Amino acid sequence: MAFDRLIDSIIRMQNPTVAGLDPKLDYVPASIKDACFEKYGKTLEGAAAALLAFNKAIIDEIYDVVPAIKPQAAYYEMYGWQGVKALAETIAYAQSKGMFVITDGKRNDIGTTMEAYATAHLGTTDIAGESVAAFGADALTVNGYLGTDGIKPLAQVCAAQDKGIFVLVKTSNPSSGELQDMKLENGVTVYEQMGRMCEGWGADLMGKYGYSAVGAVVGATYPEQLAEMREKAPHTFFLVPGYGAQGGGAQDAKNAFDKNGLGAIINSSRGIMCAWKKQGLTEEDFAQAARTEALRMKEDILNTIGEIKYKV
Amino acid sequence: MAFDRLIDSIIRMQNPTVAGLDPKLDYVPASIKDACFEKYGKTLEGAAAALLAFNKAIIDEIYDVVPAIKPQAAYYEMYGWQGVKALAETIAYAQSKGMFVITDGKRNDIGTTMEAYATAHLGTTDIAGESVAAFGADALTVNGYLGTDGIKPLAQVCAAQDKGIFVLVKTSNPSSGELQDMKLENGVTVYEQMGRMCEGWGADLMGKYGYSAVGAVVGATYPEQLAEMREKAPHTFFLVPGYGAQGGGAQDAKNAFDKNGLGAIINSSRGIMCAWKKQGLTEEDFAQAARTEALRMKEDILNTIGEIKYKV
Repeated sequence: MAFDRLIDSIIRMQNPTVAGLDPKLDYVPASIKDACFEKYGKTLEGAAAALLAFNKAIIDEIYDVVPAIKPQAAYYEMYGWQGVKALAETIAYAQSKGMFVITDGKRNDIGTTMEAYATAHLGTTDIAGESVAAFGADALTVNGYLGTDGIKPLAQVCAAQDKGIFVLVKTSNPSSGELQDMKLENGVTVYEQMGRMCEGWGADLMGKYGYSAVGAVVGATYPEQLAEMREKAPHTFFLVPGYGAQGGGAQDAKNAFDKNGLGAIINSSRGIMCAWKKQGLTEEDFAQAARTEALRMKEDILNTIGEIKYKV
Repeated sequence: MAFDRLIDSIIRMQNPTVAGLDPKLDYVPASIKDACFEKYGKTLEGAAAALLAFNKAIIDEIYDVVPAIKPQAAYYEMYGWQGVKALAETIAYAQSKGMFVITDGKRNDIGTTMEAYATAHLGTTDIAGESVAAFGADALTVNGYLGTDGIKPLAQVCAAQDKGIFVLVKTSNPSSGELQDMKLENGVTVYEQMGRMCEGWGADLMGKYGYSAVGAVVGATYPEQLAEMREKAPHTFFLVPGYGAQGGGAQDAKNAFDKNGLGAIINSSRGIMCAWKKQGLTEEDFAQAARTEALRMKEDILNTIGEIKYKV
């Protein structure tokens, strides 16, 4: 139920972090690209094959120490349907290694259409009686601007199929405050209002750790708001971007956690994918460097929050 | 520039409407489905082939009388990467017939990632020096919850490549008011604030008709807000969902237009795709029925707004 499977893994691995897999072709070493271009040409198909090989190599190095990956849909869509195929194959490969997969798609729409997104990314599609998982991730990021009927279809899939969603509350980017920080007449900010809505949407979808299937995205780049929302949305599990390349540190991310060291998972994307650069290695060492960085990040976070106390 | 190409077609065809192509497998006649399942089995590939054949048949019937299509990404993603391939092929086919294509994806993210979405849906992807259009639509719907740096990368592509975006302002669904209608401390509603941001984002991207490349989604199901926003966002071109199946009529949609009958395009999805039901025809007549409904809808809208006065 809810994020229980993810939290189980976080406790077992003592690692509340997720590796963002947002692979630009620029990040992929020449040896992989050359092989793919030789086979498929400098085409979307060739690019997609390179991304998939890159992702698999990183997953192979980290699956035993990192509980989850977060592929960002935009970087796959950039390479056409061929890239989207690589997304589907990345999801399946990570799951085959026991990882929890959060598709970062920030999807949103009216009710009937949101049903289609829920089916696409978390559920199963009916094809004349045959039931097929189109993408089959474990969780999806969504945007709650359309209100309850843009969220309910997801909540139903979460309840029926043991999945979760993360609703954008306070995003990590510089201009996030333009709308999100504005004060409403009722005295709360837009992001706080969104957090309240998350608590409401999740009320019937509670998991064994006290967190519901309706999580929230709250950026590490705004540590005060992160602390505020941790207190005000006590049943909402946080996906926290902004650590590393975007400027957030472990002390910032610390505010996302409860007193047991639970309640959040911290993402790093470029920090993991491009770790070889900081480690003075060559691009061919990207996967091993990703593991080294994943372990360093784990220690960095654990040093600030202490041991994750729940036992499974 | 901006929506000039679209408005040129609207004036030439005297038709300010767009056909939403959100093809569920249930909408596709048995003859098409059976042929596709025979060839590919009851698989995502078979379903995607059926959707594409359905779309092409509708496009063939309407391209000379309707200026644009709006495929809804969710209904393609529901059928996996195979469905997303059908989306790409639908876009290319409609453009080959001279239609303007609005991909309804409601994408949103932080700046660096939004660049990837802009590249994916409107721009061209660089593959080791080769420039390839991944999806290559003419416009994209987006969600502005993340503020300026989630919009600027799109504005750049719009300026460089003659494309447009539609930002969600006041959506057509029943719960849209939960956040969007809340009043801010500055006395305006959240949707009005978003409309103001659209006017700002579009200021440097003005087209020859006085509308910028940054449009807005405002639902026909809220005619008062539609009239309000037409007045308050005079340079923002509106994409108006909610006509037909969602309950909005021509008198509601009328509020989206300026005194010249410009400024908006009205969408119908299920009304067009499932027109044979209302016309007492069989499902095999879906394409001809779609044309009949498209022409009826055009007359319905034109009867309320009068002739579109601009001449090209």
